[in-house]
Amino acid sequence: MQVTGKSKIMFILADPVAHVLGTDMLNRYFENAGQDIVASPLHVPPEHLAATVQAIRAIRNVIGFGVTIPHKIAIMPHLDSLTPRAAHIGAVNFVRRDDSGLLTGDNLDGFGFVQGSATAGVHFEGAAVVQLGAGGAGRAVAFAIAQAGARSLKLHNRSYASAQALAEAVGQAYPNCAVVAVAHSDPTGAEIVVNTTSLGMHQGDETPLDFSLLRPEMSVAEIIMSPARTPLLAHAQALGCRIVPGKNMLLGQMQGVQALLGVTAR
Amino acid sequence: MQVTGKSKIMFILADPVAHVLGTDMLNRYFENAGQDIVASPLHVPPEHLAATVQAIRAIRNVIGFGVTIPHKIAIMPHLDSLTPRAAHIGAVNFVRRDDSGLLTGDNLDGFGFVQGSATAGVHFEGAAVVQLGAGGAGRAVAFAIAQAGARSLKLHNRSYASAQALAEAVGQAYPNCAVVAVAHSDPTGAEIVVNTTSLGMHQGDETPLDFSLLRPEMSVAEIIMSPARTPLLAHAQALGCRIVPGKNMLLGQMQGVQALLGVTAR
Repeated sequence: MQVTGKSKIMFILADPVAHVLGTDMLNRYFENAGQDIVASPLHVPPEHLAATVQAIRAIRNVIGFGVTIPHKIAIMPHLDSLTPRAAHIGAVNFVRRDDSGLLTGDNLDGFGFVQGSATAGVHFEGAAVVQLGAGGAGRAVAFAIAQAGARSLKLHNRSYASAQALAEAVGQAYPNCAVVAVAHSDPTGAEIVVNTTSLGMHQGDETPLDFSLLRPEMSVAEIIMSPARTPLLAHAQALGCRIVPGKNMLLGQMQGVQALLGVTAR
Repeated sequence: MQVTGKSKIMFILADPVAHVLGTDMLNRYFENAGQDIVASPLHVPPEHLAATVQAIRAIRNVIGFGVTIPHKIAIMPHLDSLTPRAAHIGAVNFVRRDDSGLLTGDNLDGFGFVQGSATAGVHFEGAAVVQLGAGGAGRAVAFAIAQAGARSLKLHNRSYASAQALAEAVGQAYPNCAVVAVAHSDPTGAEIVVNTTSLGMHQGDETPLDFSLLRPEMSVAEIIMSPARTPLLAHAQALGCRIVPGKNMLLGQMQGVQALLGVTAR
């Protein structure tokens, strides 16, 4: 990888930043695709998000940037337009910067999650799903699971109101999927269990659900990328579950990033 | 090279940006030193310099950034402090960002130029030098040449007043070096000819001096890095002169960057 003045620049905006692996994934992906594009992580505290976005708008060799916790919703008012799916989800995780500095927000989380799960042999069509978490990434994942044809989707969130609001929005958009908010995190009856909370990212976190309720026939998908092997995934794998590690979501997004940026493999 | 959330981030700010090679040089240098530091170029138009610097101040994984044409002087009022040599030179080409976001401007151009010339076998101690250009980099180079013990230094600049002001400042700082401004770019009598103008960067540029006045016993040093082989260097080399390519200045600065950033090779 050679970074020069001819390279196109990307960032990933995050706070904290140490867990970010997406930049390396993007760099390897673009290197393999023969594209002179390089991504660096930026540790941007929330109170400086607006000024950072404003500065990036004016930096002429930037073609886009990723957005992760805690900026996925907060960034929206600072952009010029949103793709329909980003507007639907109400959160942005990728921004295209065009030559005139206009910024378009997209959300590739759900697209990437469904793509990445398929890679691991986990398919949502016709499935009964329990999803934990209804935050920024959780919203994207829920819409994409319903769009992929899940039979039912139970949403649990620490704040029940958030789960209920999300269930309503997804149910309206995809009436063929039975979406409900649930007050408990019990996975019983689910074919696929999805963790979209950040529980498991830090040592000493409580678990996102009672591990003793998992069954070997369940598939368990995670969106946390660091650590690669969360306590949830470790437990599920030991039990014999099919698992989807968090990095799969990001790998699944690469095609979406390429399309958004308008770059094609050579 | 693996760029993750644990990497420390650097930039080089420039406009235009396509000729910038310093990021690759920094990345290779730090990779060889076992440091997880990655540099990207940022194409920052002058009217957006202040906002960009302000944003970088708040980005917590940035440890510093290079500054090149046209920002080396314009950036000064946006920094918190200057190293003595940067204050002396009146131009900044490297900025340290400390953990609290304070920005310290330094100038490693002259240090790097003298180091890089020595690498190519060109030593300034006791030498008669003709220098073309008295801009941002030119000031740094002139101070460093005098500091390195040159016997005499003739400064030519398109604007004579700039050459005169620089000659006065350098002469005051280093009274043992006979520094004068000259109205012509004639290298006759010089042991070392130094081009610090940007002439030779673009096809069709006029030449920085009359090539027919060069002699094989002269050494010719360049600070332009792209193209690597400027018309001046090509001509000088064909004539049999010892030459110093522009990239040597940057290579010579690496030690200075490491010291400024407080990072040491593992």
